Amino acid sequence: MNKTIVGVMGPGSEATKKDMEIAKTLGELIAKNNWILLSGGMRKGVMEAVNISAKKNGGLTLGILPNDDTSTHSEELDISIITNMGAGRNYINAASSHFIIAIGMSPGTASEICFAIQLKKNVILLNQNEESINFFNFLNKGLVHVVENPYEAIELIKKIKTKQNKK
Amino acid sequence: MNKTIVGVMGPGSEATKKDMEIAKTLGELIAKNNWILLSGGMRKGVMEAVNISAKKNGGLTLGILPNDDTSTHSEELDISIITNMGAGRNYINAASSHFIIAIGMSPGTASEICFAIQLKKNVILLNQNEESINFFNFLNKGLVHVVENPYEAIELIKKIKTKQNKK
Amino acid sequence: MNKTIVGVMGPGSEATKKDMEIAKTLGELIAKNNWILLSGGMRKGVMEAVNISAKKNGGLTLGILPNDDTSTHSEELDISIITNMGAGRNYINAASSHFIIAIGMSPGTASEICFAIQLKKNVILLNQNEESINFFNFLNKGLVHVVENPYEAIELIKKIKTKQNKK
Amino acid sequence: MNKTIVGVMGPGSEATKKDMEIAKTLGELIAKNNWILLSGGMRKGVMEAVNISAKKNGGLTLGILPNDDTSTHSEELDISIITNMGAGRNYINAASSHFIIAIGMSPGTASEICFAIQLKKNVILLNQNEESINFFNFLNKGLVHVVENPYEAIELIKKIKTKQNKK
Repeated sequence: MNKTIVGVMGPGSEATKKDMEIAKTLGELIAKNNWILLSGGMRKGVMEAVNISAKKNGGLTLGILPNDDTSTHSEELDISIITNMGAGRNYINAASSHFIIAIGMSPGTASEICFAIQLKKNVILLNQNEESINFFNFLNKGLVHVVENPYEAIELIKKIKTKQNKK
Repeated sequence: MNKTIVGVMGPGSEATKKDMEIAKTLGELIAKNNWILLSGGMRKGVMEAVNISAKKNGGLTLGILPNDDTSTHSEELDISIITNMGAGRNYINAASSHFIIAIGMSPGTASEICFAIQLKKNVILLNQNEESINFFNFLNKGLVHVVENPYEAIELIKKIKTKQNKK
Repeated sequence: MNKTIVGVMGPGSEATKKDMEIAKTLGELIAKNNWILLSGGMRKGVMEAVNISAKKNGGLTLGILPNDDTSTHSEELDISIITNMGAGRNYINAASSHFIIAIGMSPGTASEICFAIQLKKNVILLNQNEESINFFNFLNKGLVHVVENPYEAIELIKKIKTKQNKK
Repeated sequence: MNKTIVGVMGPGSEATKKDMEIAKTLGELIAKNNWILLSGGMRKGVMEAVNISAKKNGGLTLGILPNDDTSTHSEELDISIITNMGAGRNYINAASSHFIIAIGMSPGTASEICFAIQLKKNVILLNQNEESINFFNFLNKGLVHVVENPYEAIELIKKIKTKQNKK
């Protein structure tokens, strides 16, 4: 049976210091819940921060890579899926995650949230400005959740999982 | 040498009446300018409206299809690119268009705008609400253009093309 | 209504002189039949030879590109579909062509023939050795056709088209 | 650091009884070596047989799925990568595996071997006829290895790994 996969999306080089701190805490919490961490797998920004922290806490790390140049990949990945599809792999990130958490914003991150909504997946937003929150709420208020910190994100996932299991 | 490709994106079944009317005028104008019309190619919404109108006006119509079920494809396509990639083909839509025009909004349309911005392409927005305009302006103000009607969209493309040729 | 698309596949840098000559004649014949030429679109080998010749004879040339580096693309393409999928785009080549002609052999060319057979498309083999002919006949004898020269390839396509229209 | 991924490819519904038996033994051996098993992930043929056996022996099973219809997926998958790319995902199978083992033949399996060769990966052939062996040896003799049984396949992977680590 499938293990739970939590996708963590966020900017690469443009990630803010706060994005990185949130990613670090989130990686730890995902690992401690024995969920698989899925990310875009690159050695930068939110992707790198969340993978380092998940790995340090004994988690399983899965990267969906846009290229096959391993020198650009996070060294903390247990499993590297090589798509060679560039940002086209963003669709696979959304489709393969049971839950999507977005920390900060960039065009790539936004594309992943759009696909998640299109695929009827729950999306959790962290460290977002009003423009982003208003837009994704407009796209689908029911699936988009705004939380204050990584702990709330984890609690929300647990709550949704419980509700889904009851069905 | 490459012909100019203008990608027109917009909702399928959820397209509004106004989206459809704009798409109809735009298809005519693109055809009359001898540009190739690129769309998602499905037999519904903005995609269908723009293809019918471009074809009626002697244009060349190119569809990037998510599936190989021809019964769901617009009958007005000259060229069907069969990706069998579902919404993953949205990336190809953005990457293959020289200009992107978005009429109305949906998660799929939004993903195409995100990719266009990521690929540094000019995006023209038509019939959009404030939430969408504010968000895409936040993602990249320089590449995102809001216009009032299809005629302005065409004029803008001509202006940008002239500027690019001068370089 | 869809125009007929003939996909011509073959090696890039490893193409033989004979592969190139056949590609040249084939490009001319496809153009003169008003069929659209589809290829992998790169500026080398069979792809480049067939595009130059089709363009010189007034044909419409469509390239399904693995990358977005235009300096590597054939300059004879009317329409460039940018997939950024590397050799993953070989599937799209097969799925978007109504007929596949393979001139010479390479791993990439072989993958396109495999996909064409899987998608139940007719494949025409030109300038192939015994190993290739025997293998593809083993995969599917009914869909695989071995011909002696480009003229026979064109005649075969016409014959199959007539038969398909009668259905 | 990346765990070793062994991709096992083979026919779906057309798999022979012998293909299935070999797949069963191979799944057990891959699991006992603590390698990750990668497959096309469908609930049929070689994919299903190898996943059942790897799972029963404590292995980690990774499926690269062509669709998002979970009723068609093997129930033995720990991790499901949803590509929604149809057979286009065959490229990802090859690109993400460190070693490719092909049991039996079909157009899809052949496409995966072609991509593996193009990507300079070692390919191990099991239960193949002369036509297949001759063809893949023609494509690249150095990368293509023909073995008699699953035990030899595992020994060969160990030998190549040792050699690669020495570099």
